[in-house]
Amino acid sequence: MTTVAAPTSHVFHSWSAQDHVDSLHVVAGQGVFFEDDKGQQYLDFASQLVNLNLGHQHPRLVKALQAQAEKLATIQPAFANDARSELARLISEAAPRSLNQVFFTNGGADANEHAVRMARLHTGRRKVMSMYRSYHGATTTAISLTGDPRRWANEPSDSSVVHFFGPYAYRSAFWAGCEKEECERALAHLEAQIILEGAATIAAIIIETVVGTNGILVPPPGYLPGVRALCDKYGIVYIADEVMAGFGRTGTMFAVENFGVEPDLLTFAKGVNSGYVPLGGVVISDDIAATFAHTVYPGGLTYSGHPLACAVGVETFAVFKDEDILQRTQTLGQEVVAPFLADLCKDFEQVGEVRGLGLFWAIELVKDSRSREALVPFNPSAEENAPMLRIGAALKAAGLWPMIQQNRIHIAPPLIISEAELKRGLEIIKQVLSAELRG
Amino acid sequence: MTTVAAPTSHVFHSWSAQDHVDSLHVVAGQGVFFEDDKGQQYLDFASQLVNLNLGHQHPRLVKALQAQAEKLATIQPAFANDARSELARLISEAAPRSLNQVFFTNGGADANEHAVRMARLHTGRRKVMSMYRSYHGATTTAISLTGDPRRWANEPSDSSVVHFFGPYAYRSAFWAGCEKEECERALAHLEAQIILEGAATIAAIIIETVVGTNGILVPPPGYLPGVRALCDKYGIVYIADEVMAGFGRTGTMFAVENFGVEPDLLTFAKGVNSGYVPLGGVVISDDIAATFAHTVYPGGLTYSGHPLACAVGVETFAVFKDEDILQRTQTLGQEVVAPFLADLCKDFEQVGEVRGLGLFWAIELVKDSRSREALVPFNPSAEENAPMLRIGAALKAAGLWPMIQQNRIHIAPPLIISEAELKRGLEIIKQVLSAELRG
Ligand SMILES: Cc1ncc(COP(=O)(O)O)c(C=O)c1O
Ligand SMILES: Cc1ncc(COP(=O)(O)O)c(C=O)c1O
Repeated sequence: MTTVAAPTSHVFHSWSAQDHVDSLHVVAGQGVFFEDDKGQQYLDFASQLVNLNLGHQHPRLVKALQAQAEKLATIQPAFANDARSELARLISEAAPRSLNQVFFTNGGADANEHAVRMARLHTGRRKVMSMYRSYHGATTTAISLTGDPRRWANEPSDSSVVHFFGPYAYRSAFWAGCEKEECERALAHLEAQIILEGAATIAAIIIETVVGTNGILVPPPGYLPGVRALCDKYGIVYIADEVMAGFGRTGTMFAVENFGVEPDLLTFAKGVNSGYVPLGGVVISDDIAATFAHTVYPGGLTYSGHPLACAVGVETFAVFKDEDILQRTQTLGQEVVAPFLADLCKDFEQVGEVRGLGLFWAIELVKDSRSREALVPFNPSAEENAPMLRIGAALKAAGLWPMIQQNRIHIAPPLIISEAELKRGLEIIKQVLSAELRG
Repeated sequence: MTTVAAPTSHVFHSWSAQDHVDSLHVVAGQGVFFEDDKGQQYLDFASQLVNLNLGHQHPRLVKALQAQAEKLATIQPAFANDARSELARLISEAAPRSLNQVFFTNGGADANEHAVRMARLHTGRRKVMSMYRSYHGATTTAISLTGDPRRWANEPSDSSVVHFFGPYAYRSAFWAGCEKEECERALAHLEAQIILEGAATIAAIIIETVVGTNGILVPPPGYLPGVRALCDKYGIVYIADEVMAGFGRTGTMFAVENFGVEPDLLTFAKGVNSGYVPLGGVVISDDIAATFAHTVYPGGLTYSGHPLACAVGVETFAVFKDEDILQRTQTLGQEVVAPFLADLCKDFEQVGEVRGLGLFWAIELVKDSRSREALVPFNPSAEENAPMLRIGAALKAAGLWPMIQQNRIHIAPPLIISEAELKRGLEIIKQVLSAELRG
């Protein structure tokens, strides 16, 4: 008799109770599809963890990766290396005008850790403000910044983090009646909290430019400029977390471009190279960089500016250009997703709100559209979550891999998706909602 | 007129004052050598940052990397993937008997962050004890654990970390007269501190099995078993940080094997795949894994168990076997490095002590061998550091890339180094010391 270990038996899983993990065994991926060991194909409407912006196995990214592996797989951070230098140059050029230095990390969490360190040392202050309904990563400071239930079991952690409410017109924390009012009140609330926390104690405010996992919350037009003004007024560093929203997801290279603001620090990861090799980083303003011109920056990591990761990043910029990724993301968002979801919202009483931009959308499901009570409560138990689990299972059975968060279906396919594939995915969602919800 | 930007002009560097960075521009690497843009070759006695255990551009690692890139560059952590599953199995088999689950991270810092989180949740306690003279990474908890000057500018950080003195017979903190006495006193000191901190408040003790950057401090034979016994007595989790010491560096797959101890958690990175792709992780005891069987482990990261990184890890195990890496590391250490350095210690009054095992050694330089005053003080200013800077420059000029820390030259070449290359490097060190030191 032979016993064969299950393929995941020695792998300890993120965010899971280990005996309750039932992993799909994925063996292949191509473009917007991936395939399990039984030959079942899935249309990837989650871009894995919203990192696969150029899809699976993009031939040019694979080639760039292989070529760099052939040339020089790795070299330590203190040395200059062509791939690293070139990617830093490309990112600096694409980033807002005053951001011209790049500190590379391995992913999003450490990008945010280093950004906070820079802000603290630059200002000589310690406190950092971040939003409820946010995710910033899982190392100590990053999880402290996080404003969702993933933080709870990790508390107490970085004791110098304070959370505030951001704009979310559909579920206003400010009793606002419209988006404009939501914006004004959110800014008034933030300023009130800055004053009560002590402006002179606050090093930074960190905001996902478009809140990702916590709801694809697109800020109203004046909000981020208002935050910028408050930061200027009180000498606070503005950190834009674009780990998920950056690199084309919203139809612009960096999401801040949609709102006409320049942060002092901008963090990225995921889309920078579609996650083919772990990579993240911080883009740094000239002003903050100057703080570390003659003073040592006290942080680092073995794989900072990894050549293999950077080489795929460099090729990502070329593909964005040659395949006109930003334009097509905007067009598909405006002309395909937006009208389709608007209809969905009209057709289904239980579709409370749809929102997004580029290829970054949320469908918020409610018990009924008047009370706006969420279809499942915040941080649902497994039992409470049954309706969303059922919808998720139905989507998968229909060949669509969804991103489901709380009472929402998120839509974040690879940016290379064809119009036909996108429509096919949206139709699957519509059919599943037809079967699962009251019309 | 054209102006050409310096190759590093947009790269923000780790652990540096940015205007004082003068990076070597590295364009190629092969085996134990790398080459700059002027064609100067360096024999790499630092294995980059002690990660390049199988050397530059090992053909089998490059091939494995390219093959995985061809097959499936990336997939999210929740899915099962062959490369990830296989590497977890290989690591579990190689690790101490009771450690059978692997949580993958991107590097060493986040491996330690997650290990501490596991220990805290497993014990329900919060405090973590770590050594002075240690390095554990640069995210908030990892830098707090760190017991060297890199922590200072980041304080206060994780407020639940307490530092203690480990064994270091050459500079005993316990007025010990011999190694045996150092061991006994270090354990007595540790137990006294555990009691005064409150044993029931301490979640974990984290120790680099062989302290790396802070001095290649090989613990005396009974020390780690003594720590294990204290952890058992007080219900404390023993975390072995093998980010630098693991994967063959000391002549065994994991350094704990040299000392006959099993930690509860073992962290790794670097040598697991020679850093060809960023990868780290935590190997987890059955006991701690059981804590998260039905309770969610509240931590994760986008690139946990990255297939590309894992594929190179899988091939690393095969190369270790086929090239008999562990045996040759032991033999080269014992038969080439140890006797050579012993002679150096006899020949040079200013070589205070030499110590190490496998291909992991330190030469400690002093003003004179009786007072043991270090050649440069702890955390030297640039001016104070002049003698070591001069030695470093001379080694580089002679074609050897050294790892210099405080008053020490560390020796940590790739484990694939030939006997001839190793001897050549050692001879360069001897010649430089002859020129720079009093005999
Ligand atoms: C907005 C945001 N910030 C930070 C992170 C953390 O990135 P990583 O998982 O690479 O640590 C994520 C990951 O999903 C994210 O969405
Ligand atoms: C013992 C030890 N632990 C942890 C780390 C941190 O690893 P990383 O630089 O990958 O974050 C290092 C890095 O040098 C190390 O030597």
